[in-house]
Amino acid sequence: MTEARDRLDAKRVAAVLARAAETRPRVQCLTNTVAQNLTANMLLAFGAIPSMAVHVDEVAAMADGAGAILINIGTINAESELAIPKLLEVARDRAKPLVFDPVFVELSPLRRHVASEVLRLNDIVVRGNATEMAALGPTLDVARERNLTLVTTGKVDRIVGAKGSYAVAHGHPLMTKVTGVGCAAGALIAAACAVESDFALAAAAALTAYGIAGEIAAERCRGPGSFEWELIDAVAGMDEATLRQRMQAESRS
Amino acid sequence: MTEARDRLDAKRVAAVLARAAETRPRVQCLTNTVAQNLTANMLLAFGAIPSMAVHVDEVAAMADGAGAILINIGTINAESELAIPKLLEVARDRAKPLVFDPVFVELSPLRRHVASEVLRLNDIVVRGNATEMAALGPTLDVARERNLTLVTTGKVDRIVGAKGSYAVAHGHPLMTKVTGVGCAAGALIAAACAVESDFALAAAAALTAYGIAGEIAAERCRGPGSFEWELIDAVAGMDEATLRQRMQAESRS
Amino acid sequence: MTEARDRLDAKRVAAVLARAAETRPRVQCLTNTVAQNLTANMLLAFGAIPSMAVHVDEVAAMADGAGAILINIGTINAESELAIPKLLEVARDRAKPLVFDPVFVELSPLRRHVASEVLRLNDIVVRGNATEMAALGPTLDVARERNLTLVTTGKVDRIVGAKGSYAVAHGHPLMTKVTGVGCAAGALIAAACAVESDFALAAAAALTAYGIAGEIAAERCRGPGSFEWELIDAVAGMDEATLRQRMQAESRS
Repeated sequence: MTEARDRLDAKRVAAVLARAAETRPRVQCLTNTVAQNLTANMLLAFGAIPSMAVHVDEVAAMADGAGAILINIGTINAESELAIPKLLEVARDRAKPLVFDPVFVELSPLRRHVASEVLRLNDIVVRGNATEMAALGPTLDVARERNLTLVTTGKVDRIVGAKGSYAVAHGHPLMTKVTGVGCAAGALIAAACAVESDFALAAAAALTAYGIAGEIAAERCRGPGSFEWELIDAVAGMDEATLRQRMQAESRS
Repeated sequence: MTEARDRLDAKRVAAVLARAAETRPRVQCLTNTVAQNLTANMLLAFGAIPSMAVHVDEVAAMADGAGAILINIGTINAESELAIPKLLEVARDRAKPLVFDPVFVELSPLRRHVASEVLRLNDIVVRGNATEMAALGPTLDVARERNLTLVTTGKVDRIVGAKGSYAVAHGHPLMTKVTGVGCAAGALIAAACAVESDFALAAAAALTAYGIAGEIAAERCRGPGSFEWELIDAVAGMDEATLRQRMQAESRS
Repeated sequence: MTEARDRLDAKRVAAVLARAAETRPRVQCLTNTVAQNLTANMLLAFGAIPSMAVHVDEVAAMADGAGAILINIGTINAESELAIPKLLEVARDRAKPLVFDPVFVELSPLRRHVASEVLRLNDIVVRGNATEMAALGPTLDVARERNLTLVTTGKVDRIVGAKGSYAVAHGHPLMTKVTGVGCAAGALIAAACAVESDFALAAAAALTAYGIAGEIAAERCRGPGSFEWELIDAVAGMDEATLRQRMQAESRS
């Protein structure tokens, strides 16, 4: 598949980051219990505010004032399964950005069912790895007409949206050796979508900053344990100069 | 509001810490899943022992032999909602110290309802930030007659109890940039209350040690990722000499 | 109790580690929410793949393709209680290695009941500390005839299985000062059992590597906070040369 590749430069990425840091959007995350902590810390490092409500009787209220919503099914349980429709309703009725992360959807019929429910919504962002996105395949064929933004993360992150397509080649293999790093990416995309209505651009900006932070962390760490906190530090310390330097290095290579 | 400020010196703080390290109280924490890990590690660093039971059929048994109880509603769910009354019963019938942390109570009617139930108990400690404590306002007006200890954490922590009032000016802004740091404070207060029946003094001692650990961690770290583990190390390494040095610096400034 | 002690050398330990890193077994962990994150990171550092499904309607499907199953009752809740029989069924019907970790079984009648249900299964591995294993006592008397592998971790880890017995004297006291380190040990044993059908040997190999990683981390860290990520780094960096050097040092001492 050849995609039109839109240009992303440090200035545009930094602009999205600056808006997030200024606006401090709250992201209501219904996410898996393995990744909750890293997701919350990454959102804070990004300048956003995490909330992690799960109770069926309050997720709508918690999402109502949030800037964006994340649904990640990594440890879906009976309660979060019931909370998902509530969040979908808020996303639809209040036109809130929603990012869906179909963790391990290829392994479980329950997850496929939940994913198909979520994917009935128009105008959402779906982030998964190649295996997960392939498992959603038939549904995603209608992505364009439904205004979905598809984010397939991997060695190169591929982002396809209604208004543009991007390929982000930043990152480091250690990002797959620490649990929750991919899940936290979904939360950063959600935070970016809270301040940038072109969701493909928002996702590309978030993943560029995150991938570059991963490169920096990989240079500083000694293994996956130290990589994790170096990654948080690098996200928190990201600035336009760093983005420019690393993005130029990429385009030259 | 002008509060009588009681004097806290390094010796009194160190005495509470020493009793906790010697007694090793178990703190039964019904806390949010985002902060569970940091809370457990902070309790261990403090010399206490965490237990994190949630099942309605066992929380009472788990709390029964514990030195103190923590209830934090950060990710309240259908099950923990049912477990709360069981813990309140143990706290009341066995006169166990109970610390309540009304996370995000301002955002959700469900949380306000749960908080009002918890606050029917006399003689408990409530720890929240200014927004949360304000949201509980009307209830807290009767605090003194109900023997509540109110702990409002922030740039300066304000502690008001029946036997005394304290202001703790230690800490660092990075403590708000790592998820669960505030929640873990509630657990340390609970551990201190297990060994010091003057809950205001217990809270002041715990928050002084924690705030000073925060200052030390902030000097050593490079961002919120490294701050988190430096904070654990600093809590684990806290001693009377460090307390004295930092508390003198404060009173001189 | 005098146990026949089987000899374990660096080559045999390294062989188990190499098989795990090559096969990359997925371990379906029904584990406590406090330890989930560290457990997942430790499995990744070991070369294995974590999955942490809990939903009653999918745990069987998620376990079906896994190389091994871990059941840890540290934060058992109403849902995980129902998921346990589903996992036991997969373990029995598909002859999958199953490791059971009876956290705090001595404190709760509910946990004793659940443990007795799990222990009806033959051919499983039970990992606990001395207090937990003692609380299971009467049940464990029949261990040998039921082909159970009993792993009692502590200053010296004692492993008793049908095919052999081992004593592992590696490790460091800091391993008890970080929450989830013991729980993660259960997951590493499960990963080893996925690639080594002699479960006692598998457990001994995993605990030797883990204990040596603990020694290395303790030398490098400044407290429990830095110990945690140093431990992950040390597990990820473990190799036969390091094993040989540390195991020789032990046998000389």
